[in-house]
Amino acid sequence: MRFVPDFIANFFTSGSSVYKELQTILGYTPGNVAIYELALCHRSNNINSSENNERLEFLGDAILGAIIGEHLFTKYPTKDEGYLTDMRSKIVNRKTLNHIALKIGLKNIMKFNDQDYFLRDSMIFGNALEALIGAIYIDKGYARTRTFVRKRILLPFVDIELLENMEVNTKNKLIGWASKQGKKVDFILIEEKVERGRKRFVVGVQLDDVVICKSTAGNKKEASKIAADEAIKVLAIQ
Amino acid sequence: MRFVPDFIANFFTSGSSVYKELQTILGYTPGNVAIYELALCHRSNNINSSENNERLEFLGDAILGAIIGEHLFTKYPTKDEGYLTDMRSKIVNRKTLNHIALKIGLKNIMKFNDQDYFLRDSMIFGNALEALIGAIYIDKGYARTRTFVRKRILLPFVDIELLENMEVNTKNKLIGWASKQGKKVDFILIEEKVERGRKRFVVGVQLDDVVICKSTAGNKKEASKIAADEAIKVLAIQ
Repeated sequence: MRFVPDFIANFFTSGSSVYKELQTILGYTPGNVAIYELALCHRSNNINSSENNERLEFLGDAILGAIIGEHLFTKYPTKDEGYLTDMRSKIVNRKTLNHIALKIGLKNIMKFNDQDYFLRDSMIFGNALEALIGAIYIDKGYARTRTFVRKRILLPFVDIELLENMEVNTKNKLIGWASKQGKKVDFILIEEKVERGRKRFVVGVQLDDVVICKSTAGNKKEASKIAADEAIKVLAIQ
Repeated sequence: MRFVPDFIANFFTSGSSVYKELQTILGYTPGNVAIYELALCHRSNNINSSENNERLEFLGDAILGAIIGEHLFTKYPTKDEGYLTDMRSKIVNRKTLNHIALKIGLKNIMKFNDQDYFLRDSMIFGNALEALIGAIYIDKGYARTRTFVRKRILLPFVDIELLENMEVNTKNKLIGWASKQGKKVDFILIEEKVERGRKRFVVGVQLDDVVICKSTAGNKKEASKIAADEAIKVLAIQ
């Protein structure tokens, strides 16, 4: 199987400074160097070629999802799948990954055209981090990739408690936005019902006495949280 | 780590007929039997308990995504990430998984309340298949889970060529629906532009001269396909 196109020059020549930076980021000596080069090559490097990191990003995204999924499953044996799903999407969030990629210094060893207008607000570093995870998987297999993700991403950069509290921020963000607009926002309990033997709460977000969205969950806090997230989307609040 | 609640009785007693059925489905002798029991226990079996397969479904869904992602990445070295993403979502589609679960006989060894009204249109068998994949991962690790998914799911049940042609069906489905409603449906090219040095095509679905949705892609066929999928959703066509 040929994963790496022939064109890839030896950017990561053994002993060069970029090679050393790659080694530091990985925490081990890469075997298949060319696959890492491909992972760090953004489309803007050569827009007429399909030889860029986008396929590896697809692979890395899938592998990362599995590793984070397993990590949360093991770490939180009493949390339900709603919590696990929510936490995973917060961790693999594009902004979070882009931030981590910049922190570990991925930008310095990437090939991309920094004059490209379209890169200004994009998440190319987070995407390259996913591609790097794909490359590690091809070079070293699942177990080693898991070790990399845990040691180099989760442990130093992902604060679960902080992420748990992001929900508070969404509600506050909505209230703050409403106050600036001179509008009144309320979370109201619309319905309390029993479904399949379980209590379900329907909470609505009311903006100036108009219900703009509703959400259902097993408790009021969770339902309010989802409704706030939804309202942020509906109102396109940045 | 305690993954399996104490309550789980020995449904899969070694030598029993359900145990043999489980063995046949897996293609090997299970190590940690209790984890498989949990995977095959639907919430309806005991609605007052959280001891059901939902957490394992979360885990299995993540592991399955990685395995299918890697499979497609390796099998189609020249296809871009758009194709890979599209194919993966068609394979891990809830209906497809439910169908496969029924084919391999998962229903026979599941614990669920078949009187439960809410199960009628649900996808509990596909969900249990995901949970089973989570259980295999815990019992046997990633490599063995990959072998199971490839040999027992992908090879016998997933026809990539058939899935590739599903796009044709979506368009036909939309046209068929419109004709029954006495409406006219057209796919129109709204815009052709160059973005980052690449051609982009914006295709709209027009229903009785009203554009109901638009999609953008690198070629007209792909853009029409996405627009058709979108229209099916917007119009809630079953």
